Amino acid sequence: MSRKSNESNRFSPFAQWNRALSIRSQNRSSANSTSFPSSNSHHRKPFSFPSLRSPTFSQPDLSKRLSRLLKSSSSLISHHESAAKERISIATQLSEWGEATQDDSVSDISDKIGVLLSEIGEQEDNYAHALDDARGALKVIRNTERSVQPTRDGKRKIADEIAKVKSKEPQSTRLVVLEQELVRAEAEGLVAEAQLSNVTRQKLKEAYQAEFLATIERADKQIILARHGLRLLELLDDTPVVPGDVKAAYAHAGQARQILNDAEDDLREWRPNGLLEEEDSKVSASEAIKGERHQVVGNGKGKEVDRGSMTETVVNVGNGTAAAN
Amino acid sequence: MSRKSNESNRFSPFAQWNRALSIRSQNRSSANSTSFPSSNSHHRKPFSFPSLRSPTFSQPDLSKRLSRLLKSSSSLISHHESAAKERISIATQLSEWGEATQDDSVSDISDKIGVLLSEIGEQEDNYAHALDDARGALKVIRNTERSVQPTRDGKRKIADEIAKVKSKEPQSTRLVVLEQELVRAEAEGLVAEAQLSNVTRQKLKEAYQAEFLATIERADKQIILARHGLRLLELLDDTPVVPGDVKAAYAHAGQARQILNDAEDDLREWRPNGLLEEEDSKVSASEAIKGERHQVVGNGKGKEVDRGSMTETVVNVGNGTAAAN
Repeated sequence: MSRKSNESNRFSPFAQWNRALSIRSQNRSSANSTSFPSSNSHHRKPFSFPSLRSPTFSQPDLSKRLSRLLKSSSSLISHHESAAKERISIATQLSEWGEATQDDSVSDISDKIGVLLSEIGEQEDNYAHALDDARGALKVIRNTERSVQPTRDGKRKIADEIAKVKSKEPQSTRLVVLEQELVRAEAEGLVAEAQLSNVTRQKLKEAYQAEFLATIERADKQIILARHGLRLLELLDDTPVVPGDVKAAYAHAGQARQILNDAEDDLREWRPNGLLEEEDSKVSASEAIKGERHQVVGNGKGKEVDRGSMTETVVNVGNGTAAAN
Repeated sequence: MSRKSNESNRFSPFAQWNRALSIRSQNRSSANSTSFPSSNSHHRKPFSFPSLRSPTFSQPDLSKRLSRLLKSSSSLISHHESAAKERISIATQLSEWGEATQDDSVSDISDKIGVLLSEIGEQEDNYAHALDDARGALKVIRNTERSVQPTRDGKRKIADEIAKVKSKEPQSTRLVVLEQELVRAEAEGLVAEAQLSNVTRQKLKEAYQAEFLATIERADKQIILARHGLRLLELLDDTPVVPGDVKAAYAHAGQARQILNDAEDDLREWRPNGLLEEEDSKVSASEAIKGERHQVVGNGKGKEVDRGSMTETVVNVGNGTAAAN
């Protein structure tokens, strides 16, 4: 990946989003949704990826896909952890360099910028931890997929056996036993597939709600720190001096310190969006979503209805497998 | 670094900021600033780092410190680049896994979450590029530090030589020549130190303004994407079903697609804070700072005064060395 400047890109609002909406969803919308014609398409660029999916699709053992994804997530988390560590190390180096310049203003500002950078690094590390928590929910899906596989395999095996016996010895008394076994296997399969479906939806939602909330939290807090950082830099007088002139003495130490205090106060007062006094993070998550400006209505229904024993089973599957990697 | 959950930490507003304000700045404030007594200290925790600086301080070749810092910055940039790549890869994997579940709602939502995650990855990559641009400004300081070193060394060498000659042959005619050389070296030194001071302040400010603006841009855009991601997840009905029940057909494809359109529109409409119609990134930087809510006044002075030939020299030093690593 080249590191050349793409500043013009970053500041141009028209070059920002070349992603796909996915080819599949376009096909589908013509089939079962006419309420959202692509009314905005006249000012949209064509997509650089036609879909995020490879064109040929085969279904191996389902849990393998998610295992790969979990492995990639683990790398992602490590990269953010490494970035956090490096950021904190840079903060110290900047502060020490600043002192070595023997320029009072550079020394003070660089020390305080260092304090903010170090906190930006801490927020990066918190983000990595939050991604790891979210990853735990995806593991539950993967583990359920694994546990459902033998049930699917068992059912197919019995059906195959019945077909074989029917063709070879259609009067065999084994057929009765096998048919009974198949009915039991099908019942087990129904439960297993329902469990998988429930766990998949619940944990997928949980995982990405957690990720998005963590993304917002890191972003909000790093914005606070960066804004105060910009204030600090304004205290550094960079008017050029001519040789032999004496620079004005640095007189902003108090202001600089106040900026750190302000940053600290702002961080302390930060709350998840839409949440004012609640401390519970679970509540904060759902409140934040409800407070969201484009709220989609009609999806909260049914959460409080009787979930029956199925839910209990599902929850047990979930909790029982959460710890295993 | 352990990855255990620190969720309580992340959501508790009182455990967020254990950084130092730096020991040095506390000493200084008692000496030359009584206007900012630590009025807030009663509700502040003690600092986990007393200072970002190591207690013993020695000054080797100044440019070595900054060279180390530049190396660390390079690692930091690589970590963010790797995170961006991994994020984009995970987006595709999630979308493909979702299709393999053969659950229409999981399939559609996971595909669209994938599109948003992939754009979050793109923003992470833009951030890495912006950090690299900012790093360029620090390189200019490091290169100026390097170029000033021989001037400092030369001056000291002549002074040493004069001392030696004075003690050995105080009537030597070489002394006159050496004294002249010293005067010239001192003049050169004055220019060099002024150049270094000017470059240091200007480029330090430039580097961290660019970093903080990039931090804000990444944060703003990832917040947009995460908020729309939360909307998408609300379309996924995770009410548990009992075995054998048929799930309600997925009817949100149009809404889901509209959410991607909204995200795209919001990203396109994003502008640096405080900037409405300007496209120039330089203007946007200073405007964003001026528009900042805690604006510190009285620091814009002098930017437009006559900077004289010194500035020319300084700018030339800056541009001439920007390309070298």
